Amino acid sequence: MNLRSGRLKGKMTSDAATFTSSMEFDKRIFWADIKCNIAHTTMLKEQKIIPAEDADKIVGALHMLESEGIEALNLDPSVEDIHMALENYVTEKIGEVAGFMHTAKSRNDQVATDLRLVLKEEISEIEEDLLKFIEKILDMASENKETVMVGYTHLQHAQPTTFAHHLLAYANELRRDYERIADAKKRVDMCPLGAAAMTTTSFPINRERTRELLGFERLMENSIDAVSSRDFMAETVFTLSMLASNLSKICEEMIIWSTYEFAMIEMANEYSSTSSIMPQKKNADVAEIARSKTGVIYGELVTIMTILKALPHSYNRDLQEVTPHLWGAVDTARSMLNITCDMLTSITFKKERGLELAKANFSTATELADLMVREKNMPFRVAHQIVGRTVNEAIDKGMKPGEIDSEFLDEVSVEIRGKPLGISEELVKKALDPYEVIKTRKVIGGSSPEAVDEVISHLREFIEGESGKKIDIKLF
Amino acid sequence: MNLRSGRLKGKMTSDAATFTSSMEFDKRIFWADIKCNIAHTTMLKEQKIIPAEDADKIVGALHMLESEGIEALNLDPSVEDIHMALENYVTEKIGEVAGFMHTAKSRNDQVATDLRLVLKEEISEIEEDLLKFIEKILDMASENKETVMVGYTHLQHAQPTTFAHHLLAYANELRRDYERIADAKKRVDMCPLGAAAMTTTSFPINRERTRELLGFERLMENSIDAVSSRDFMAETVFTLSMLASNLSKICEEMIIWSTYEFAMIEMANEYSSTSSIMPQKKNADVAEIARSKTGVIYGELVTIMTILKALPHSYNRDLQEVTPHLWGAVDTARSMLNITCDMLTSITFKKERGLELAKANFSTATELADLMVREKNMPFRVAHQIVGRTVNEAIDKGMKPGEIDSEFLDEVSVEIRGKPLGISEELVKKALDPYEVIKTRKVIGGSSPEAVDEVISHLREFIEGESGKKIDIKLF
Amino acid sequence: MNLRSGRLKGKMTSDAATFTSSMEFDKRIFWADIKCNIAHTTMLKEQKIIPAEDADKIVGALHMLESEGIEALNLDPSVEDIHMALENYVTEKIGEVAGFMHTAKSRNDQVATDLRLVLKEEISEIEEDLLKFIEKILDMASENKETVMVGYTHLQHAQPTTFAHHLLAYANELRRDYERIADAKKRVDMCPLGAAAMTTTSFPINRERTRELLGFERLMENSIDAVSSRDFMAETVFTLSMLASNLSKICEEMIIWSTYEFAMIEMANEYSSTSSIMPQKKNADVAEIARSKTGVIYGELVTIMTILKALPHSYNRDLQEVTPHLWGAVDTARSMLNITCDMLTSITFKKERGLELAKANFSTATELADLMVREKNMPFRVAHQIVGRTVNEAIDKGMKPGEIDSEFLDEVSVEIRGKPLGISEELVKKALDPYEVIKTRKVIGGSSPEAVDEVISHLREFIEGESGKKIDIKLF
Amino acid sequence: MNLRSGRLKGKMTSDAATFTSSMEFDKRIFWADIKCNIAHTTMLKEQKIIPAEDADKIVGALHMLESEGIEALNLDPSVEDIHMALENYVTEKIGEVAGFMHTAKSRNDQVATDLRLVLKEEISEIEEDLLKFIEKILDMASENKETVMVGYTHLQHAQPTTFAHHLLAYANELRRDYERIADAKKRVDMCPLGAAAMTTTSFPINRERTRELLGFERLMENSIDAVSSRDFMAETVFTLSMLASNLSKICEEMIIWSTYEFAMIEMANEYSSTSSIMPQKKNADVAEIARSKTGVIYGELVTIMTILKALPHSYNRDLQEVTPHLWGAVDTARSMLNITCDMLTSITFKKERGLELAKANFSTATELADLMVREKNMPFRVAHQIVGRTVNEAIDKGMKPGEIDSEFLDEVSVEIRGKPLGISEELVKKALDPYEVIKTRKVIGGSSPEAVDEVISHLREFIEGESGKKIDIKLF
Repeated sequence: MNLRSGRLKGKMTSDAATFTSSMEFDKRIFWADIKCNIAHTTMLKEQKIIPAEDADKIVGALHMLESEGIEALNLDPSVEDIHMALENYVTEKIGEVAGFMHTAKSRNDQVATDLRLVLKEEISEIEEDLLKFIEKILDMASENKETVMVGYTHLQHAQPTTFAHHLLAYANELRRDYERIADAKKRVDMCPLGAAAMTTTSFPINRERTRELLGFERLMENSIDAVSSRDFMAETVFTLSMLASNLSKICEEMIIWSTYEFAMIEMANEYSSTSSIMPQKKNADVAEIARSKTGVIYGELVTIMTILKALPHSYNRDLQEVTPHLWGAVDTARSMLNITCDMLTSITFKKERGLELAKANFSTATELADLMVREKNMPFRVAHQIVGRTVNEAIDKGMKPGEIDSEFLDEVSVEIRGKPLGISEELVKKALDPYEVIKTRKVIGGSSPEAVDEVISHLREFIEGESGKKIDIKLF
Repeated sequence: MNLRSGRLKGKMTSDAATFTSSMEFDKRIFWADIKCNIAHTTMLKEQKIIPAEDADKIVGALHMLESEGIEALNLDPSVEDIHMALENYVTEKIGEVAGFMHTAKSRNDQVATDLRLVLKEEISEIEEDLLKFIEKILDMASENKETVMVGYTHLQHAQPTTFAHHLLAYANELRRDYERIADAKKRVDMCPLGAAAMTTTSFPINRERTRELLGFERLMENSIDAVSSRDFMAETVFTLSMLASNLSKICEEMIIWSTYEFAMIEMANEYSSTSSIMPQKKNADVAEIARSKTGVIYGELVTIMTILKALPHSYNRDLQEVTPHLWGAVDTARSMLNITCDMLTSITFKKERGLELAKANFSTATELADLMVREKNMPFRVAHQIVGRTVNEAIDKGMKPGEIDSEFLDEVSVEIRGKPLGISEELVKKALDPYEVIKTRKVIGGSSPEAVDEVISHLREFIEGESGKKIDIKLF
Repeated sequence: MNLRSGRLKGKMTSDAATFTSSMEFDKRIFWADIKCNIAHTTMLKEQKIIPAEDADKIVGALHMLESEGIEALNLDPSVEDIHMALENYVTEKIGEVAGFMHTAKSRNDQVATDLRLVLKEEISEIEEDLLKFIEKILDMASENKETVMVGYTHLQHAQPTTFAHHLLAYANELRRDYERIADAKKRVDMCPLGAAAMTTTSFPINRERTRELLGFERLMENSIDAVSSRDFMAETVFTLSMLASNLSKICEEMIIWSTYEFAMIEMANEYSSTSSIMPQKKNADVAEIARSKTGVIYGELVTIMTILKALPHSYNRDLQEVTPHLWGAVDTARSMLNITCDMLTSITFKKERGLELAKANFSTATELADLMVREKNMPFRVAHQIVGRTVNEAIDKGMKPGEIDSEFLDEVSVEIRGKPLGISEELVKKALDPYEVIKTRKVIGGSSPEAVDEVISHLREFIEGESGKKIDIKLF
Repeated sequence: MNLRSGRLKGKMTSDAATFTSSMEFDKRIFWADIKCNIAHTTMLKEQKIIPAEDADKIVGALHMLESEGIEALNLDPSVEDIHMALENYVTEKIGEVAGFMHTAKSRNDQVATDLRLVLKEEISEIEEDLLKFIEKILDMASENKETVMVGYTHLQHAQPTTFAHHLLAYANELRRDYERIADAKKRVDMCPLGAAAMTTTSFPINRERTRELLGFERLMENSIDAVSSRDFMAETVFTLSMLASNLSKICEEMIIWSTYEFAMIEMANEYSSTSSIMPQKKNADVAEIARSKTGVIYGELVTIMTILKALPHSYNRDLQEVTPHLWGAVDTARSMLNITCDMLTSITFKKERGLELAKANFSTATELADLMVREKNMPFRVAHQIVGRTVNEAIDKGMKPGEIDSEFLDEVSVEIRGKPLGISEELVKKALDPYEVIKTRKVIGGSSPEAVDEVISHLREFIEGESGKKIDIKLF
């Protein structure tokens, strides 16, 4: 059956039909379209809007289709979309009464419902992937609480820290990505079914019932809003963009850290490539491609936001074009997420190099200044000035951080304040030893092993709490 | 005092100083920087990290500055940023001990804290504006439950509805914008203070205490994450982009509806302009400028996302450039929101024209088909075919929708199914009368006055619930 | 042969291999890769870098592959990319000497060359499509020089014009799109071959010769630039974004003009659709989908720009991810361009409605003011004031524009300046008649038939000039 | 005088007036608006459209304003825009006849003309800045033709090169940026004046004459296009985005190269900063801020493209909002360009470190393979395999590149091909010495000093050619 048999006499040109066809990405909503039709038909029967007998036939045919799979449909481009293909299938099986399943329903509310059903499911899978990734990071962190490295600001040596501490930054960021996606899901988890074309229907349907049958949390009440809003797609894609942005930071660090110059990590061969002309190369290709995917997801977001701008209500065909970009973002983000997880967890951190860098370039200077404040009750700014001068002179004289001693500090102090510092050699050495410094960062969120453990345990609690929430939404 | 007195001997060129200066947009965090310093100093005193006496002097000077206002600061470009300007002020008032307030704190955690404090406040104001806007829409809707208009899909006449029903689409969309912004606020409402430069500090600070003093809901635990994450800005700007997108739909409709051709509304003079060469013009300039602001906010989002892409941890100066684009988006969104509210609530809806359009172009065709299904138990697809043919023939014969009667329907039915329909003239007339059709949309979210009332009351409950939550966060 | 047989022992995981594979979009450069290898091998032979006999064998095998087509290649994912697949084919045909074709060449310069060859070709096709579209618009314009319509500013009636005049705005915009794309092509048309991996080679290759053989206009001299620059892709996609933006304006107007309210055009059935529940609908789906594609191309641009941001030299794998988004933009723009052309040229302009609107709402007011300036030597601002008041009063009295006469004008003039205007009734009527007004716009670019003819003939000259330039670049 | 004295009775609210005001960014077109009015008035006089005497008075007042400067204008927000402010000024000086200057002109064509005049000027300045930057790069390159460094692909050591060779990649990229901007200028350099509101005018104006007086290259013929097209702004901002993208690559390299780990360059103190808590830091702040500005310019592009999408013809107020984003991009790009130039030219390249890295990690492996092909007539793939194995074994045995000798190569060769290579020790050593390898890259665009010289001289010719073209466009 062809919808165009109504008003329009001519047919679309084949170019126009291809240009406007949604069939390619409709396949993704196949299972949801079945569920949606079953729920709707069930409700129609319960409300006595259509004969029970016909409703049962329809539901029966739909279950048959479910078990046969999408291959059972005729997806010829001339069929317009999956809703038609599905209706054609049911009609073939049970005849003209198939038409009853379209009572009090339109493709406008149907497609919006299908998309939300599928997206909810896919978001749940991304949530699980995210929790798994965080868990693996926590495992890595647990094993690297004493793995010293230098922390960077402006990509310059700043302060000594541990690889575990650094990994927890990843974990905390990803936790917020998880929360953001979960919040977005609340607005995906709303049921537009029953809005029909845009004003609901004169049939006494029960929108709460279909909502419940389909497992949606809330109803999209206003029917114009229900068929014309795609903010749930834009928001989802934004949360994936943000996730991609956070993942790209990890990738960037893996690329920089695996350079010959940094040499802090060794990539696993499984996530590297070589060159056809430079056989000594070991390139972080997976990290590079993953980094570039950030741009891909940003692009999808811009596409969607551009399409939505200044569209009048209610349904416009432009909305159809949003969908493939939602799926593009979902698929890209998911593969990016999982490959980044695999890549990160397979690196080897070079511990000696980590320690070497932490010792090399005055990254303990802050601690030295803090020491003066603590021991000598000196305002921080004065301590800062002395340390600044000390480092300056040490660099000028070609001294290494380890060569600074209490005598040298006294000399600088005399220059600046007219009197020596008088801090013991032992304290100075401790302040200059990276791991000793790290151990002093006991404050929550700090780099000491205890502080790291505390955050790990908070994150494990979070994961446990969230994992408990998961339930199978493909219930019926 | 100049930080550069430490390591670096030369000065930045004046071009470089201007290029890297944040002073211009630092002004916005003035009050927050004071609060942050007070909370931090209070905690340092409580933890006995700095002498109580000195702490009191610092807090005293800060309160003095608070009452004097930002004019009391020397904001000379040579001063680098507001944190320095503030410290200089305190030093001037109480001498060298002012330096204690910087103990166990860095500009990295300080600026992140300030920005979050200010943003939380500004988000709360936007939330209030949104609730007010929704409330005004509900008031308009309450007055227009019987104001008939035609509903559009594809900008073509689809089904009769009311202006109230249409307005509730706006209200429901804006409610989700509100929820989205409130969700984003949860991730703004996290305290990074105590992270110091990036690894916390060896001083026994109490991060929970400063969090509590500043009224933050949660702590940003990991200290690297705390100083280097700006996802809270990106997320906020996304929620404003989505809001702008929804507002742009309203503006678009106001522009189209106020054309000579649609003539459905009359803009208030206060929100229109005329032309220097075409005095008869009445242009919807406010709606046009508001529509264009959507692009401005999208641009800010892209700016922020681009800056954040693939930045290594922890602090990089690039992060500074995110801030003005956050404020740009906040200010633009807020003015766009409020002007759209003012403009929308000042329009005059032309009721006769609304009804005229609803009657003009077969927008009741769906109801006619539904009638056949209901009365004659006909599968929807068959009814659709009959109505399609009916409309086709009516258009060909130049008939108006009002001229279709039961006899005409019977003829078409005979052509298609070999038998007449047999639906009474009264039912046919009712099915073709826009307001009669509207009254049948009693399902939740539908266009009937009762259904509209139900959604209005749900939204009023929502507003009440949210308004109750508001508390003044500028507590101390 | 597998490149990894060199340095790296393990294999990529299958996920990583899929994630980093370019094979899918490599197919598009198949023909270019053959040409590039033939040109390079020919040059190697001429320069006596490889034995003439071996070179001939290689070229022979490549010609064979050309005639067999891409199906002859083994495109198994394990093969990495098309360059390898092609080399494997040649090796199979002629044995180990196939390896000579890779002498003094790398995949880095090869892929850059291939992409430029293909893109040049595709741009030429888009240029042709654009010229054809402009030509069709000129044909439409030629037939509509007297088809009166109202011109809009702010979507409000501004001044009378003709459909032809309006169409020429499209034509002039598309002409700039053409120029822009042609300018971008100058930077596509540069040959990176010979840059090898990044520093050229120690073999005495002749880069000018391969440039010439491949028909490139210029050489990309610096070899680091040659392998790492993708600005030619970004620029191309920008020009397509701008084209899409211009096309979206056409689509928007088609959508608005085909509403029931404007009713200025009738879409051809071939480019419209109907609704499953509202059979009277005739929706401009093609225009809507085309409009939405604007967002798709913008998204590709953002993707590419994001990927390129802050990438260090020279080749990074991120560059691979730019390519599919180039092709995505090219394909989308091309289908959008051609379908918009087809749709636009199949509309029916409703002439009576055009005239009706032009007469309805004082769109001739400017001319009335101009008349006063001309006849009475009155400063424009005074004339403007009189016309403003006139229109105001006419609207208040419910008068139509056609009812304004010289007496009415005199009355207003007396009110404002204390004296009548004294313009003859005939002149007033002429100033108020849309087509009479149109005929006065004789200035170049104006709406009068002569002015329209002048611009049409300029554009025809332009098309002729450009068509002459086209030469077949698939020369050898 | 207030335009609203015509049709509209009420006034805009103060919020609406502020929201829609363009005054802030109108200031930038002050000088252009004077020139535009002078040219237009001169033409009106020549065409005898307005009395010569009045024209002279107008031009006189405009010249007076030009010398007094913008301060002479009343820019009160109530004045709407700069065109009104300017007209008010002239009216004040010469009375009601000032109104003649608005004859046959509208703000629509006037503002489009002004913007193009100013932008042309600003583009010319950017072009000059670009040529200067390229020239400075060439100077640096001339001094660093023998400064050895390692070239990177995937941020991994690839092949030895020189700093000069690397710098020429920058130069070639910036040259294309220059070309792109110059091409965009061709489409800025078009005169819309005379289009009036949208259909030209019935006055016999001479559009060619004003075009000539204002120094525009071409006329924007179709008058609807003339007032409603802003593609020239979008294109300009794209070329600046591309420039920013290229500059961001330079910044990224400066940041990475100045890390402790790479240590290839030392930033000048003038372009670095230190930290308030880590005095040993020397951060590349200028490069970081410059890098972040890339995102700012991308954002402006997205803003503009979003605004332009699907706007109907002709003028809509949305177009006004494009302008500040044009200027934002122009100003940001210009400061980014000049500061990057200053920063780059003030770095110190550490020559010993450059050489050390070039020798450290088998970057000469390609040359070794090439040597085998050349000396032993071996297919490249076989040579590649031997070198791959060699490097592998060297790494396994902890050998440095310098320790590989002909004997070692023979052993590997025997393993793979059953026979030794037989290449002399001298040739092997030469192939492994970075500078010897560099000297062999004599091909155009290569890294050898001669090849570098050749490209430098081509670029100097280009600069000379372009500098000759510059003429002062502020002629009258």
